[in-house]
Amino acid sequence: MKAEEFDPIIQAALREDMPDGDITSENIIPSDSRSEAVFLSREEGIMAGIEVAKRVFEIIDPRVSFEMNCRDGQPFRKGTVLAKVQGTSVSLLKGERTALNFLQRLSGIATTTRQFVEALVGTKTKILDTRKTTPGMRILEKYAVRMGGGQNHRLNLSEMVMIKDNHLLLVASIKEAVQMAREKVNPGIKIEVEVTNLAQAQEAVSAGADMIMLDNMPLAKMKTVVDWVQGRVPVEVSGNVRLEEVRSIASLGVDFISVGSLTHSYKSLDIALEFMRG
Amino acid sequence: MKAEEFDPIIQAALREDMPDGDITSENIIPSDSRSEAVFLSREEGIMAGIEVAKRVFEIIDPRVSFEMNCRDGQPFRKGTVLAKVQGTSVSLLKGERTALNFLQRLSGIATTTRQFVEALVGTKTKILDTRKTTPGMRILEKYAVRMGGGQNHRLNLSEMVMIKDNHLLLVASIKEAVQMAREKVNPGIKIEVEVTNLAQAQEAVSAGADMIMLDNMPLAKMKTVVDWVQGRVPVEVSGNVRLEEVRSIASLGVDFISVGSLTHSYKSLDIALEFMRG
Amino acid sequence: MKAEEFDPIIQAALREDMPDGDITSENIIPSDSRSEAVFLSREEGIMAGIEVAKRVFEIIDPRVSFEMNCRDGQPFRKGTVLAKVQGTSVSLLKGERTALNFLQRLSGIATTTRQFVEALVGTKTKILDTRKTTPGMRILEKYAVRMGGGQNHRLNLSEMVMIKDNHLLLVASIKEAVQMAREKVNPGIKIEVEVTNLAQAQEAVSAGADMIMLDNMPLAKMKTVVDWVQGRVPVEVSGNVRLEEVRSIASLGVDFISVGSLTHSYKSLDIALEFMRG
Amino acid sequence: MKAEEFDPIIQAALREDMPDGDITSENIIPSDSRSEAVFLSREEGIMAGIEVAKRVFEIIDPRVSFEMNCRDGQPFRKGTVLAKVQGTSVSLLKGERTALNFLQRLSGIATTTRQFVEALVGTKTKILDTRKTTPGMRILEKYAVRMGGGQNHRLNLSEMVMIKDNHLLLVASIKEAVQMAREKVNPGIKIEVEVTNLAQAQEAVSAGADMIMLDNMPLAKMKTVVDWVQGRVPVEVSGNVRLEEVRSIASLGVDFISVGSLTHSYKSLDIALEFMRG
Amino acid sequence: MKAEEFDPIIQAALREDMPDGDITSENIIPSDSRSEAVFLSREEGIMAGIEVAKRVFEIIDPRVSFEMNCRDGQPFRKGTVLAKVQGTSVSLLKGERTALNFLQRLSGIATTTRQFVEALVGTKTKILDTRKTTPGMRILEKYAVRMGGGQNHRLNLSEMVMIKDNHLLLVASIKEAVQMAREKVNPGIKIEVEVTNLAQAQEAVSAGADMIMLDNMPLAKMKTVVDWVQGRVPVEVSGNVRLEEVRSIASLGVDFISVGSLTHSYKSLDIALEFMRG
Amino acid sequence: MKAEEFDPIIQAALREDMPDGDITSENIIPSDSRSEAVFLSREEGIMAGIEVAKRVFEIIDPRVSFEMNCRDGQPFRKGTVLAKVQGTSVSLLKGERTALNFLQRLSGIATTTRQFVEALVGTKTKILDTRKTTPGMRILEKYAVRMGGGQNHRLNLSEMVMIKDNHLLLVASIKEAVQMAREKVNPGIKIEVEVTNLAQAQEAVSAGADMIMLDNMPLAKMKTVVDWVQGRVPVEVSGNVRLEEVRSIASLGVDFISVGSLTHSYKSLDIALEFMRG
Repeated sequence: MKAEEFDPIIQAALREDMPDGDITSENIIPSDSRSEAVFLSREEGIMAGIEVAKRVFEIIDPRVSFEMNCRDGQPFRKGTVLAKVQGTSVSLLKGERTALNFLQRLSGIATTTRQFVEALVGTKTKILDTRKTTPGMRILEKYAVRMGGGQNHRLNLSEMVMIKDNHLLLVASIKEAVQMAREKVNPGIKIEVEVTNLAQAQEAVSAGADMIMLDNMPLAKMKTVVDWVQGRVPVEVSGNVRLEEVRSIASLGVDFISVGSLTHSYKSLDIALEFMRG
Repeated sequence: MKAEEFDPIIQAALREDMPDGDITSENIIPSDSRSEAVFLSREEGIMAGIEVAKRVFEIIDPRVSFEMNCRDGQPFRKGTVLAKVQGTSVSLLKGERTALNFLQRLSGIATTTRQFVEALVGTKTKILDTRKTTPGMRILEKYAVRMGGGQNHRLNLSEMVMIKDNHLLLVASIKEAVQMAREKVNPGIKIEVEVTNLAQAQEAVSAGADMIMLDNMPLAKMKTVVDWVQGRVPVEVSGNVRLEEVRSIASLGVDFISVGSLTHSYKSLDIALEFMRG
Repeated sequence: MKAEEFDPIIQAALREDMPDGDITSENIIPSDSRSEAVFLSREEGIMAGIEVAKRVFEIIDPRVSFEMNCRDGQPFRKGTVLAKVQGTSVSLLKGERTALNFLQRLSGIATTTRQFVEALVGTKTKILDTRKTTPGMRILEKYAVRMGGGQNHRLNLSEMVMIKDNHLLLVASIKEAVQMAREKVNPGIKIEVEVTNLAQAQEAVSAGADMIMLDNMPLAKMKTVVDWVQGRVPVEVSGNVRLEEVRSIASLGVDFISVGSLTHSYKSLDIALEFMRG
Repeated sequence: MKAEEFDPIIQAALREDMPDGDITSENIIPSDSRSEAVFLSREEGIMAGIEVAKRVFEIIDPRVSFEMNCRDGQPFRKGTVLAKVQGTSVSLLKGERTALNFLQRLSGIATTTRQFVEALVGTKTKILDTRKTTPGMRILEKYAVRMGGGQNHRLNLSEMVMIKDNHLLLVASIKEAVQMAREKVNPGIKIEVEVTNLAQAQEAVSAGADMIMLDNMPLAKMKTVVDWVQGRVPVEVSGNVRLEEVRSIASLGVDFISVGSLTHSYKSLDIALEFMRG
Repeated sequence: MKAEEFDPIIQAALREDMPDGDITSENIIPSDSRSEAVFLSREEGIMAGIEVAKRVFEIIDPRVSFEMNCRDGQPFRKGTVLAKVQGTSVSLLKGERTALNFLQRLSGIATTTRQFVEALVGTKTKILDTRKTTPGMRILEKYAVRMGGGQNHRLNLSEMVMIKDNHLLLVASIKEAVQMAREKVNPGIKIEVEVTNLAQAQEAVSAGADMIMLDNMPLAKMKTVVDWVQGRVPVEVSGNVRLEEVRSIASLGVDFISVGSLTHSYKSLDIALEFMRG
Repeated sequence: MKAEEFDPIIQAALREDMPDGDITSENIIPSDSRSEAVFLSREEGIMAGIEVAKRVFEIIDPRVSFEMNCRDGQPFRKGTVLAKVQGTSVSLLKGERTALNFLQRLSGIATTTRQFVEALVGTKTKILDTRKTTPGMRILEKYAVRMGGGQNHRLNLSEMVMIKDNHLLLVASIKEAVQMAREKVNPGIKIEVEVTNLAQAQEAVSAGADMIMLDNMPLAKMKTVVDWVQGRVPVEVSGNVRLEEVRSIASLGVDFISVGSLTHSYKSLDIALEFMRG
């Protein structure tokens, strides 16, 4: 990750929070006052977004120094000094909220993702995210999933063909849909089909689907499909999967479990920026 | 609210999800196929974002019709048809995820806010949000808080002077800080001071603060301050306030309780877009 | 002020003046020719915009050196060398007109503002600007007013509630308008009411207005209002106030006089960029 | 003129004045309240900007009706109803200040320009503007000059070669400068040279200049040059020319007089938006 | 294709050609003069870009009518009236060059592509384009290839993994490179490997590549590879393939031939806009 | 040329090719792997675009070093090392295609232009380009023409008046058209008229045209016009002029020949980026 790639969203966030500056700090703190402050974890978690937090301060004021003690992807305990910032007090105060808004959310996502990933240790199954992301924040939220140890599903509607239940209502058959897609999209594009039973899975695989998704299927039914597929194409399981369930699903031998709640309902991790008394 | 004001964030969301179109729908669904679909609530809640969802489809395709059955701010039960959309199947499929990403988040915020607001029925106390919003989504998230019955705290750092704990580490005294701010900011700007005890509250009010904030104070201490203030300035309470606590805080006679979790850790409400079988 | 904040308007000005470069200088002056030039005042005044002028050259060519002899806010006499620039001749020629267009206007505004401010020496009354600014130039023009010693009134329609004569035609009463505003806007926002007589002033103050404005009122009438208010809220006077009048208005004890002509009809100050003979 | 071409500057002006809406009107005026208001001249002048004013309201709310009684370029008396607007009260209130900010400035410029133009009636001499325009407003200010009956000098540094005093300090000779320019710029570009005496004028014309400019020259000296040129190339006079002087300069037979003060120091014309009592 | 999707590049083209309008047409043609003009082919070809040409005029002036006689993808003879436009003369003159610049280029590409496609009639081999497109024009040029009957290769570096000769210099082995890619990219992404001999092809396929590319290989060598692959993965041939060669390459049974010259060296087709005499 | 001026088109090209990074290189090449590569000509030509290629790498990664062996405007032989780049392997791989897409096209244009220019050695006639450029690429393509030794015709419709055949269908006479234009456009703008015979040429020159264009005229007819003009205004010849014809046209004494095919149908020059084996 190069944090510069996120400059547009960081700049938008700063404009949103400071359309005309920080009228408190600029008016009551001397412009040459300097401070030191630390990012302190108030609960344990997995780091994601520390590079973005650093970039927030760089954009506000290139002379702020930002020393990281914890890299994206690393676990930390409650009470850890995650990073130290030094610079003019006004610059630190201006960046505080925006840096935390990124850091708390992204670390929240990474932390939850890690729980799912750890529940699968020893299996071949991988955790995927979905497109249920916050508008404007997708690349950052998907980055946080990776930091938590998950993998990303398709980034957007332009990247992969995914024939879902709503499409199947509108086409003649799975077979025809897969063949039409194969004919028209460029040869570098994969095709995945959402199926609800064994017969559909068989139709999709024979038609040339590159991957199938089992949506909201009971365990026994999943097993029948996975046993039939025998590794010819990767199998993904989807549908409000809860942490308690992932291991039993994985034990069937599925390749991927996608979890919408990683990004659609995250909890911000409690991280604070504490100013050191001068 | 005029939904057009949110066009930039809606357009960014659509670009994010379709940098080069929806290669599934465009390639397998005939361009003249038409569908009807309904937004269906899978749990009860308070509506926020239905205008934005409508606007998503208008931007994709002005010929899509969108009929609302529930307005922003209204409560709905599980199983309600919230809106009906009709148009070409491809246009509906393109907008589905983006419309839901907005609708589910904003309704989630409005629903949680309403719980806080209802806990205060019969008191004069109002629920406020904070600046702990998702980067890029602030005006929408603050709109959702209003739909839930909350009020908005300052929109950004440029709108109001708010002298917080980190500032007080850096100035000579509350008195001096308030006076400096009053001298320099334009006369239309209010000044709020975060205080941690009665003495600070007294200093702030005498110095001319327009509002004070009690941060993370025990109930008894809050009471002392509120009793002393006697309505001379509005009093706000802040600091990880939980739903169970708000009523007892309100009973002290405070004017506002601000709740960061309304926006920093929301849960998407479960709303689906169901296509009708042709 | 950080001059970088004005980059968008400076860049727009440069694009406006050089959509495809400076075809004179680029084609007849050798690219390695270097020059020195001075900004010279041809009349006395108050400086505003020297930081912007510096930034114009920095954007055109970061290697131009710009040495200031006069800071924003300082007075200067006719014939003063305000700044010295050195760099390639082409870069200096490209920036000349744009730098002067900013500098002459902003210094013109600061100079006029200072005349009003000086007319009030010894009183508590402050000079305010208005929203009668040139489209696109508001933050710079308001900056120039501050450099002249004035204070800024509200920056825009989103920052403060101001109930004016046209609003009063459309609401039931001042009381109701103030109460509606108080109910709906966030608690950090101030409310000002324009009044035309004592009764209105009394209604506004009792309803909870934070500030009142007396528009186009004769001196005697103003006095009645100011005497009644007795400092409970700040009082602003407005309405084509001329330089000759401000002192007698101030002597009534009003807090602010707002002057539209500071920005709606300014005169550029005569400042030249003189190239030194090599 | 198509007013749509000015949308970027109009939109910037509206964003500047309403980053988050008009919190007064939106909160105290019912959204279905409708009003009628008139643009009323409080002094006589020449209209410029009425199309822009109309466009301001169209952008805010396409349902506002705007009926013009006076076209750009037309003279009007004090007390004239220049236009009538009807629509929701909130839309009218939102556009009021921005529409006036454009209209008052542009009409101010047109009115002053017309005074210069009328001073030249019966001569062949034309009034030109300069590049001394407000950053961001150049195309509108130059439009206002045309409405006043003036003509536009070059729009920017990319449009025409103009060899001025500062250039002449840096080149070997006028002759060489003209030849270098002719060689390098595309054949559609004209070359003008600023001269300070007859010899320079002769050198410029022989070298192939398409136009010459006499800068700050006494009348007698101008006459010598004009008499020598005998119409071979157009002659422009420049340099702080005042209204009282233009006619005597014109009588020498010069083609153009350029006047910087048209745009560098304009006075807003007094035009008001009056709401009709319901 | 929805032509609106190309608005950014069309608008950029119009701004490039008319930063300040069309000073010829606007000044010498009456604004109410109306014309009719036809797009006339001066050589035969395949249409691509007629929707874009239509959109050029719609953006300039929505009242221009544009009647198409030939759709994108259709062949036409020399001397065909491809479309008819009617509207104000000024609007037609403004759009002429920009519309032709798009239409001539895109039809040139479609026409050349069709020659390659026709050379393959009766085989299963398909023509692909490459990323050798004009900066800024990629989606339009790739659209023109589809109109000519070709298929698109990957749109950009983010869409598909393609391990080429330069990569192979930098990795341990094909096997390791494929496995690393498979591990890291999301499961919807395909992996293609460029190979230069049978051993590499075998290594790539066993490692799990989804597709292989034979670069600049003699026919006999290609045959060995294709015979070994036996359809397990699609095979692409690349490397300055000329029209005369494609059929013999196709006869080996390859799936795709990619042709860089379709977009890197196109010839504009000769199409004119002829105004009808009034 | 300052390459920074082309940043917008370069950045657009990079976004087009890497909306979400280079998923091949980023995933299989270690981020600290470094490479050296050379731009190698595979045919002889004239350089144009080497500064742009350099800028491509600077934007991707400021630490890449780029050493030029050949400047824009210089000829080179087949097999020349035109430039050498060093940096991280990933940065070089990311910039490869975009740098080549610019370099190959621009050098192709410069090379063809030079052939026309060399055909005219010893005459006074100059080669001009036209507005038949690729949308979005005009300033770069016109730059390449200059590097090939050509001159640029008008940059766009706003820069010069050019009265063409389609205009003449719509005006009363050449005389009137020229006079109207002269009256209305600013005095810095030149007027050119396209003529088809001697009478029209005479009318144009007497009316005050600054330049005339002979379109698609036989040599004998051209001669009559050129002989009559006798240098009073520059004469341009236009109309699908081929390389074989330019010298005989030049020998008539015309000033300019404009050649649309320089930019409307260019051939990319064969230049490769070769990575050195480590």
